[in-house]
Amino acid sequence: MQKQVAIAVDMMSGDSGADTSCRAVSDAISRGDACQFILVGRRTEIVQHLKKYPCRLDHVKIVDCDDVVRMTDNPLLALRKGRRTSMWIALDLVKQGVAHACVSAGNTGVLMAMSRYLLKMKDGIQKPAICTYLPIEDDKEVLALDLGANVDCQPNHLLDFAKMGSDLHVKESPTVGLLANGTESIKGNQLVKSAHDLLASTASLNYIGYVEGDQLFKGVADVIVCDGFVGNLVLKSCEGLTRMLTNEIANVSRNSWYGVMVKSLLKKALSRFDPQNRGAAILLGLKASVIKVHGAACHRVFLNGISEALKNARHHGDQHVTTPDSCYAE
Amino acid sequence: MQKQVAIAVDMMSGDSGADTSCRAVSDAISRGDACQFILVGRRTEIVQHLKKYPCRLDHVKIVDCDDVVRMTDNPLLALRKGRRTSMWIALDLVKQGVAHACVSAGNTGVLMAMSRYLLKMKDGIQKPAICTYLPIEDDKEVLALDLGANVDCQPNHLLDFAKMGSDLHVKESPTVGLLANGTESIKGNQLVKSAHDLLASTASLNYIGYVEGDQLFKGVADVIVCDGFVGNLVLKSCEGLTRMLTNEIANVSRNSWYGVMVKSLLKKALSRFDPQNRGAAILLGLKASVIKVHGAACHRVFLNGISEALKNARHHGDQHVTTPDSCYAE
Repeated sequence: MQKQVAIAVDMMSGDSGADTSCRAVSDAISRGDACQFILVGRRTEIVQHLKKYPCRLDHVKIVDCDDVVRMTDNPLLALRKGRRTSMWIALDLVKQGVAHACVSAGNTGVLMAMSRYLLKMKDGIQKPAICTYLPIEDDKEVLALDLGANVDCQPNHLLDFAKMGSDLHVKESPTVGLLANGTESIKGNQLVKSAHDLLASTASLNYIGYVEGDQLFKGVADVIVCDGFVGNLVLKSCEGLTRMLTNEIANVSRNSWYGVMVKSLLKKALSRFDPQNRGAAILLGLKASVIKVHGAACHRVFLNGISEALKNARHHGDQHVTTPDSCYAE
Repeated sequence: MQKQVAIAVDMMSGDSGADTSCRAVSDAISRGDACQFILVGRRTEIVQHLKKYPCRLDHVKIVDCDDVVRMTDNPLLALRKGRRTSMWIALDLVKQGVAHACVSAGNTGVLMAMSRYLLKMKDGIQKPAICTYLPIEDDKEVLALDLGANVDCQPNHLLDFAKMGSDLHVKESPTVGLLANGTESIKGNQLVKSAHDLLASTASLNYIGYVEGDQLFKGVADVIVCDGFVGNLVLKSCEGLTRMLTNEIANVSRNSWYGVMVKSLLKKALSRFDPQNRGAAILLGLKASVIKVHGAACHRVFLNGISEALKNARHHGDQHVTTPDSCYAE
């Protein structure tokens, strides 16, 4: 029997507010996700949106709160003044043991700062990293991190990412590569060169050296490590390119009689690479599970975030779950 | 009437040596490129390969040299000891006014160091940058730089890239964007944040702010600026992804009766994005034209490099062209 777990959902912080998150929660309930949802945000808005997406509400609780972290908010300022925001309260529910995992589509920098402050880092890890499995050749996947949590890194941060990625990977002793501008030892910027020496001298890692951008999809390493600025740009560029190429082919096929067949073929071939079908990103290195959904995510992507949270939460399902005073089933 | 120009071709420095470069030169001659080719490299190898790809040789001269820059060579060491390499001699021919442009598929770092030493920088520019036009939505292109020449940059280098890109762009006062992990002013790593302030306060630039990775293909800016480490990784990741997606669709279509039609449609839709159909990269900021071809380039890409060199050389076609003593038509 599956353990009963609770997931705290920051309903307000994404670009589209409670609409997208409500639809995702409704979809999760409708598909039978065995879990308690604690929805954090403006009660009136949540109730209004949930009415649009009917679902059984016996496992839903709402924690009412007025304040929201904005995408433009400064992490340090939000940390000082944001204790009444939906993001803070959702994370605090995990800290208090009321929920086992948190999902948020909010400001990455603030989510990272608040998670670090409230949930604390795992022993020996300095900064959380955003990681996800990316689809590559031959129906395989590569675990990539950091994808945007840390835009200014030191070599030891990249070492931490390599360790965290290796720990998370399903394989025993997965190979680890450093993303660089060439495979020769003279390549790399100063950060990557220093990190290369650190990784190469860490016996617990199965480090294979530099991996070039065009090798990223070849499966030359199981775990790919980079700083968050580079990771974010590579990930988003690839997402933008996939969207453009899909549109280009769709446009060309629209004018031919066999366009419908091409469209279905395209859908089949590219569905794995559609960001909307991907699992959400995990904020790694914390003592509890935090799932980061893209700020502009549609309900399908948000739903993927809930799935990921559920998977992570089940690992911690033996924790005691209490019902906070301010929670009422609607 | 078109001016008679001369192009010095470093025949030896690419991964595949004289074979690829000879085939490209032969193709250029066969399609009627009105230009004198000065081929720099091992005479015996060049003659041997040219025999495989027959073409008229009355506009071809060979400068015999034994030494080659290797892909693993250190720029500073190569600068001290590489004066007898095909790369050095090809660049020196441009310096001497014997050739108007140089094409090389060699080690980027060494090509940059040698070009800088021999040909000197334009006034006010500190470092050369690699730039190219990338295909984006709606049949448009974006000029992107730096794509790999400078892996460790200072903010003023990004300012130089913005100026050089603006100067090169065909548009009057093109819009310039800085590649970053978000469009909000709190985004960017330390380098990009400092560069942002510099670019914003430079009146001669039409600076529009940060551009995210997924906006790269939307044409939100005419010129995209980034450091060479990021630029190289974004460019190569996108190349790798294009290759993988093309293969995925081809694999799926192989098993259907309308596969041939899909293949032709795919070719039509994606040909613009095929790296092999793209113009080569320009080493910008130097007092003369140097064209960088990818080290592992096939003959078609190398041919694109020759086309780009020819286009650039025609701007300088009024220079006096002499025939070096060691040149003999084969």
